[in-house]
Amino acid sequence: VTETAGFIARVAQAAQRNHSLLCVGLDPEPDRFPQSLRLARRGIIEFNRHIIDATAGLVCCYKPQFAHYAAVGAEDQLAETIKYIHDHHPGIPVILDAKRGDIGSTAEKYALEAFERYGADAVTVNPYLGRDSVEPFLKWKDRGVILLCRTSNPGARDFQDLEVGGEKLYRVVARRIAQEWNAAGNCLLVVGATYPKELAEIRALVGDMPFLVPGIGAQGGDLQAVMRAGRAATGDGVIINSSRGILYAGGGEEFAAAAQAAARTLRDEINKCRSVHA
Amino acid sequence: VTETAGFIARVAQAAQRNHSLLCVGLDPEPDRFPQSLRLARRGIIEFNRHIIDATAGLVCCYKPQFAHYAAVGAEDQLAETIKYIHDHHPGIPVILDAKRGDIGSTAEKYALEAFERYGADAVTVNPYLGRDSVEPFLKWKDRGVILLCRTSNPGARDFQDLEVGGEKLYRVVARRIAQEWNAAGNCLLVVGATYPKELAEIRALVGDMPFLVPGIGAQGGDLQAVMRAGRAATGDGVIINSSRGILYAGGGEEFAAAAQAAARTLRDEINKCRSVHA
Repeated sequence: VTETAGFIARVAQAAQRNHSLLCVGLDPEPDRFPQSLRLARRGIIEFNRHIIDATAGLVCCYKPQFAHYAAVGAEDQLAETIKYIHDHHPGIPVILDAKRGDIGSTAEKYALEAFERYGADAVTVNPYLGRDSVEPFLKWKDRGVILLCRTSNPGARDFQDLEVGGEKLYRVVARRIAQEWNAAGNCLLVVGATYPKELAEIRALVGDMPFLVPGIGAQGGDLQAVMRAGRAATGDGVIINSSRGILYAGGGEEFAAAAQAAARTLRDEINKCRSVHA
Repeated sequence: VTETAGFIARVAQAAQRNHSLLCVGLDPEPDRFPQSLRLARRGIIEFNRHIIDATAGLVCCYKPQFAHYAAVGAEDQLAETIKYIHDHHPGIPVILDAKRGDIGSTAEKYALEAFERYGADAVTVNPYLGRDSVEPFLKWKDRGVILLCRTSNPGARDFQDLEVGGEKLYRVVARRIAQEWNAAGNCLLVVGATYPKELAEIRALVGDMPFLVPGIGAQGGDLQAVMRAGRAATGDGVIINSSRGILYAGGGEEFAAAAQAAARTLRDEINKCRSVHA
């Protein structure tokens, strides 16, 4: 991995090396930790280290979700988690899932937060404020900018599905990003696993732009449908995220082994779909 | 101020007491601090305390912007800033400007972050993910949920202005919030000062729901046009934010006195518009 290779290339290299399209979401919920870590002062980083060491050979990237750290004032453990991955498992990129979105001058600060303070390889961004709110991220050309397009939650229908000049808003968002915002080739889209029809539609619009696909597992997305609908013609083009289904696969002190088994099972299921639909 | 009075009532009380619709945005930029604070280990909280003490009699609320703290790892100073306002200037509400937006289970964590960890009286939220992404905030009935509607930046046009069934998206967003999300009466809207026509349109749609209006000053919004377009029939209904124009009114060691003078001038200009258009 050279420092100038972009985020998408780095994910592809990790995917090839680990034969995996799986992203493990690092969403710590101390209430669900094993007893020994639940009340530990630095329980989050301890939990994450065990999960990371158990799964680093099975993933193409990691995705810590910001709110899970911010709600309990654990930004230092978020920073340490990202550094731990980079130091101990080089070549595995990290997505900071923070869904930022603000006016240009403020977005500059958010880009510094994600890319400099936390050293993330990519960040999720909300497109509602338009182009100038995204440009401060886009100009970090070796980092990924993962824009919300069609999300995995029920409320995605409220605005993302509104008809705009004969087609739905999420299609307009997807096309605008692909045609106008992606000059540096560092854009990706968030498209939820829970809506395979929309996944297929968006795939048809944006060529081989990679998708980050949340919603498998706890949210009920169907993996086979996702893999049929979401893959790009020229390659894989999907990063399949699972958080709770892996982190809390086992509740006891054997949580890391349980997480490893769950990650391996999901990775293999994804790969089965890859060979079927190749 | 009783603990059960909602955010909107608390702002109205502060507005009446200080005869002010001004919100001072606490967006620390250490490069613009006076020399003595620029390199101080806790320069942000020191700067903010001086600004707050100089302006607390001139505002109806404060609004720290999250990215300005997060970019430099100063969440502790953000928490201290909010606590300082509550402890030393009780009755002045604080808006955490963080523009959160995520699926329901994650939004629960963001609500805990804003309202419990930071103790904010209100938080800004991005509506793109729809109703279930906003409900975890709405159920904190004594706090304000300030939803992005028509923002102040140029990119606001990209998606917010798209035509949806004969009218623009920001109108659909405004109506949905007013008619369906505001059962607890704790919703407000962000409507940028830079687009007075849109401000008037949205005012016509949502009755007396208060607006948080950024974009005066550095962004070029016209105060008189805003006050003509944005006020509610039944009262004032606008919270006028200014950040850079007040914080950095004077560059030297007299920055707090300069900020006080700038805040007083803007407050008085706003009040002049109130009496003209009353």
